Amino acid sequence: MALFRNDYSEAAHPNIINSLMAASKEQNIGYGEDNHCKRAAELIKKEIGLENIDIHFLAGGTQTNLVGVSTFLKPYQGVIAVETGHINTHETGAVEATGHKILTRPGKEGKLTPKDIISIMEEYVGEHLVQPAMVYISNSTEMGTIYNKEELRAIHNCCSQYGLYLFIDGARLGSALTSKDNDLTLKDIAALSDIFYIGGTKNGALLGEALVICNPDLKKDFRYAMKQRGALMAKGYVLGIQFEELFKDQLYFKLAAHANTMADKLKAAFKGLGTPMLTDSPTNQLFPIVSNEIAEILMKRYGCEFWQKVDEDHCSIRFVTSWATIEAEVDECIAYIETLLKK
Amino acid sequence: MALFRNDYSEAAHPNIINSLMAASKEQNIGYGEDNHCKRAAELIKKEIGLENIDIHFLAGGTQTNLVGVSTFLKPYQGVIAVETGHINTHETGAVEATGHKILTRPGKEGKLTPKDIISIMEEYVGEHLVQPAMVYISNSTEMGTIYNKEELRAIHNCCSQYGLYLFIDGARLGSALTSKDNDLTLKDIAALSDIFYIGGTKNGALLGEALVICNPDLKKDFRYAMKQRGALMAKGYVLGIQFEELFKDQLYFKLAAHANTMADKLKAAFKGLGTPMLTDSPTNQLFPIVSNEIAEILMKRYGCEFWQKVDEDHCSIRFVTSWATIEAEVDECIAYIETLLKK
Amino acid sequence: MALFRNDYSEAAHPNIINSLMAASKEQNIGYGEDNHCKRAAELIKKEIGLENIDIHFLAGGTQTNLVGVSTFLKPYQGVIAVETGHINTHETGAVEATGHKILTRPGKEGKLTPKDIISIMEEYVGEHLVQPAMVYISNSTEMGTIYNKEELRAIHNCCSQYGLYLFIDGARLGSALTSKDNDLTLKDIAALSDIFYIGGTKNGALLGEALVICNPDLKKDFRYAMKQRGALMAKGYVLGIQFEELFKDQLYFKLAAHANTMADKLKAAFKGLGTPMLTDSPTNQLFPIVSNEIAEILMKRYGCEFWQKVDEDHCSIRFVTSWATIEAEVDECIAYIETLLKK
Amino acid sequence: MALFRNDYSEAAHPNIINSLMAASKEQNIGYGEDNHCKRAAELIKKEIGLENIDIHFLAGGTQTNLVGVSTFLKPYQGVIAVETGHINTHETGAVEATGHKILTRPGKEGKLTPKDIISIMEEYVGEHLVQPAMVYISNSTEMGTIYNKEELRAIHNCCSQYGLYLFIDGARLGSALTSKDNDLTLKDIAALSDIFYIGGTKNGALLGEALVICNPDLKKDFRYAMKQRGALMAKGYVLGIQFEELFKDQLYFKLAAHANTMADKLKAAFKGLGTPMLTDSPTNQLFPIVSNEIAEILMKRYGCEFWQKVDEDHCSIRFVTSWATIEAEVDECIAYIETLLKK
Repeated sequence: MALFRNDYSEAAHPNIINSLMAASKEQNIGYGEDNHCKRAAELIKKEIGLENIDIHFLAGGTQTNLVGVSTFLKPYQGVIAVETGHINTHETGAVEATGHKILTRPGKEGKLTPKDIISIMEEYVGEHLVQPAMVYISNSTEMGTIYNKEELRAIHNCCSQYGLYLFIDGARLGSALTSKDNDLTLKDIAALSDIFYIGGTKNGALLGEALVICNPDLKKDFRYAMKQRGALMAKGYVLGIQFEELFKDQLYFKLAAHANTMADKLKAAFKGLGTPMLTDSPTNQLFPIVSNEIAEILMKRYGCEFWQKVDEDHCSIRFVTSWATIEAEVDECIAYIETLLKK
Repeated sequence: MALFRNDYSEAAHPNIINSLMAASKEQNIGYGEDNHCKRAAELIKKEIGLENIDIHFLAGGTQTNLVGVSTFLKPYQGVIAVETGHINTHETGAVEATGHKILTRPGKEGKLTPKDIISIMEEYVGEHLVQPAMVYISNSTEMGTIYNKEELRAIHNCCSQYGLYLFIDGARLGSALTSKDNDLTLKDIAALSDIFYIGGTKNGALLGEALVICNPDLKKDFRYAMKQRGALMAKGYVLGIQFEELFKDQLYFKLAAHANTMADKLKAAFKGLGTPMLTDSPTNQLFPIVSNEIAEILMKRYGCEFWQKVDEDHCSIRFVTSWATIEAEVDECIAYIETLLKK
Repeated sequence: MALFRNDYSEAAHPNIINSLMAASKEQNIGYGEDNHCKRAAELIKKEIGLENIDIHFLAGGTQTNLVGVSTFLKPYQGVIAVETGHINTHETGAVEATGHKILTRPGKEGKLTPKDIISIMEEYVGEHLVQPAMVYISNSTEMGTIYNKEELRAIHNCCSQYGLYLFIDGARLGSALTSKDNDLTLKDIAALSDIFYIGGTKNGALLGEALVICNPDLKKDFRYAMKQRGALMAKGYVLGIQFEELFKDQLYFKLAAHANTMADKLKAAFKGLGTPMLTDSPTNQLFPIVSNEIAEILMKRYGCEFWQKVDEDHCSIRFVTSWATIEAEVDECIAYIETLLKK
Repeated sequence: MALFRNDYSEAAHPNIINSLMAASKEQNIGYGEDNHCKRAAELIKKEIGLENIDIHFLAGGTQTNLVGVSTFLKPYQGVIAVETGHINTHETGAVEATGHKILTRPGKEGKLTPKDIISIMEEYVGEHLVQPAMVYISNSTEMGTIYNKEELRAIHNCCSQYGLYLFIDGARLGSALTSKDNDLTLKDIAALSDIFYIGGTKNGALLGEALVICNPDLKKDFRYAMKQRGALMAKGYVLGIQFEELFKDQLYFKLAAHANTMADKLKAAFKGLGTPMLTDSPTNQLFPIVSNEIAEILMKRYGCEFWQKVDEDHCSIRFVTSWATIEAEVDECIAYIETLLKK
């Protein structure tokens, strides 16, 4: 029986492993200056439809966030995020460890709004307060929700107005872009942000995030920043090879779409049972609200994580599907839930 | 024709890739709490011959150095290193970026001596100077040399006397321990240091360093430190799987020994030609001193790095062999060098 | 006409200036190792009634907070504070600049409660979240309120239970201890905290805060931390001389009591006029809630700071009295307010 | 009998204390936005002969260095200094604590040369090494020596060529500018550097350094940086008042010239006795080389600091004169030395 614990439980898509095997007989130069990284960057640029962008491959999400945020801020500047943002919650203070405060607002269903940003810009004025300089959002968010084009454009415009950089954490960007509710393209993402990344770890790679620098002012010397934070891999080509595979023949999108389809099926089952959800997630993370007893049973059986308390008797738990989720396992889960919840 | 540029040019040993392929069909829990990491740690403990040590798997050398050094120092403390130490030269100020000064001495052939340590301890006294708290050495060193048991014990004793932690950068520990000049065991290393690591990236893994915490005082909460610096991989089992392979059937030592054997052969050839070496390296890095013209030719043909200027007309360049070096390629290189240098 | 803008508008009490003049003809050794600092420390120890404490003199509040907090935390640890806490609001991210996250709760009237601490301790569990290690409170608070003995003991006990250090920002400790609602002594403060400071800048000194380390584990090498953060003054005796004066003949308490008396008089006037207050402050900061028009007039006339919006038509502004406030000026202010508000 | 230990032994010139006394009856607004700071800045601008510069008042040298250096560097950039530079030796790693490596060269008599800078620029190339971005020099230096106009212009030109900022630590700038060997004006200093400071602590003020930002690119938001590092004093006017006095009627220069005159007299006496000096200092710090026995006697009698070992039997000790040094005390010292050394 499969777990629905997270989307990084299975090592990597076989195409990727096969490519790594093939490359073990080659010699590649180090630190991401090899041909695999070059080709992977070309494939991504082609997919985005832009030439004038820089692409760097890093090992993981927290690392990409901390390098991406800290490199572009002056010592006294801070980054705006929604309270549930990954950098504010589950990174053990990684951004603060680089010296920068995170300025938060509650947001809505895991999403930040222009109103939140404006409220911070109006509060943080003068040299006794941290100077906001960047906005951090995730797409899909930590609550499974996604930004639509109108929402992202509004945030982008708000950032432009206040002179803020916009950074998009795309650890689950594949899931966002292949969601049936999505109306954004990779090109939109690139046009509306200064810097974002395309997560590989949670979408079929052994590890790796492709960071895209869109704002020309942010390109210079970024490899220095990577090296200093331990993010310039000696075998950079191990990341390049994986992104080559992911962006060849649309594998990246196929894998993410599969995870979403599996989640949609599970979501429909919960809906049919009248189970409320913490957020109306159209991606591969679902947050059903169940009684504490049911939660215990499901967490044990499917490895789900406890998410948050809703009231004395109820809580939300998280189901996550992945590129490797087998449909039969989803069916098994649905059958079990139906039995359990219909009692 | 092969390059002798470095020991991270080839992706990974086939056994490792095969194990990753096999694991792609499993589900593993994240962040290094899986069974592969547990088994890898058990294998390493068995190899070391100690139970009471903690083992963590990190992605790369600079990352391991910066987490390993910064976690154990108070804000005003510094780390002692030889001038040529990797943290002092080729890590873009990663240790300083965590807030700590590196206190250096010239050392000898890449090695630090108790005399160097004492000289620093006598200079750095009082609150106007950084307080030394840790000694960092590499084995093998950045100059290819190794510490013998007597030297390491002397440094260990000196550290004990002054209350300094001893950290050993083992990015190339395999090459050191399998050198024909070596008289140290892994158990000696563990007994004589507070913390050290067993490098995988430069000895057959795709990536990965196994950090061993020997001093019980340093064990608590180390995973917090890893997470904060972006060093706790979501797919931690990708590292565990690799070290499982490396420490099963002595693969780690076999690979390192092969690299050394290849280097020895090359070294003998240089010796036969009367070529002086920058250091008398018994490991997989060699630093022949040649004329600037010869250097140009060899760097171009074999991808060797320029190491340092020796005089107006001569310089040292670096040849590195690896776990994947093919003997026939060494023979080709020797033949070429003999023709070139005998002219 | 006097301003009621803050308690650092007037340079220093004449006794202090006179002592500095006298000392200009002496020679003192530097960096706080002089006899004035020694005598000032002795006077403070006597006032506290404890011998086994360490006392250091620093230049200002933000500096004292940043050194006091950062020195005792491991890199991945954070400090708990109420949202309105000075370190969280008006220090431009000084604590984050040393690498540490501030974990906040809304609190009540500027005060943190054990319930707040417990709620954080229950949330921040596991290596993906910052590890709480210290509680920061201010007394008096940024809202003018004070902790009574029962409240402080409850916080102290809560800290002990969870193994948290307790740091008390005493930038306005004089005002707290001489408030008519106060039931705490300096000895209580020392017994119930690990580290606290006695603010001089806001109570009659040119500059200077006396940091008291009560927890023996925190004493070692603190001067290194001061020096590193630029807080070890070359002319440390300039701070010692001032605290000598302040703790001779109870001057410190007399000055603070005067500021409180002046504030009480003003508070009574507002009360008589039926003006609501943002908090029921018994110290030298008052936060009357008035209409936006009245606020404009008073801010202009008395230099009051805008504090916060209360509703569309009303806001709170801050009146601050000081050691130097002249009673006749308070009377003038009262007369003016009565005319203005009675209209 | 007077000590010649340092130039921060005596509190402050009477004019300064008198002005502080007078100001204790005023009300001034906080954080350096008062009229005293404005007037002091005007006086300094007039003295420099430039209008288009920004002036900020900070509390001490280490603080000024750490804020001045850290604010202008990107995370992966470093600062070039001579090995004996104050930031590299006697500041407990304050610059490294802000995340930046100091790149050093031995220099000559405490001075850095263009050759040193070039040698670093040629070594530090590529993203594996720290990127040099600023040059730090002191005038007068930690060895008592000064830069002449030609030397400073050469360094300035070298910085321009490599795109490096030039920061001048002027903790003892008064002594440098009034030295009989000096050919630099304040205007030259401003024209040839990006940022420098005029030290008050070591030239008659209770405390205080006036930081001058000459490069327009570095002006924006500097007060944020000050506040974050605890360097924006609540009673900023206490610094303003002192610099007002120092730059009224040339007091700053008169005090420094006096210190130099006293040192010159002492230097002549040593010269007459044939005592060699560690450096040919034309300022208020002298470094005679004497036998270890003589050194012990003089250190005890005059509070001199041990400076460095010269050979087994000899060492250098430091004599420092100040704005407050009394000529008769110099005469006493000379008489004593003559008796001691002529034996």
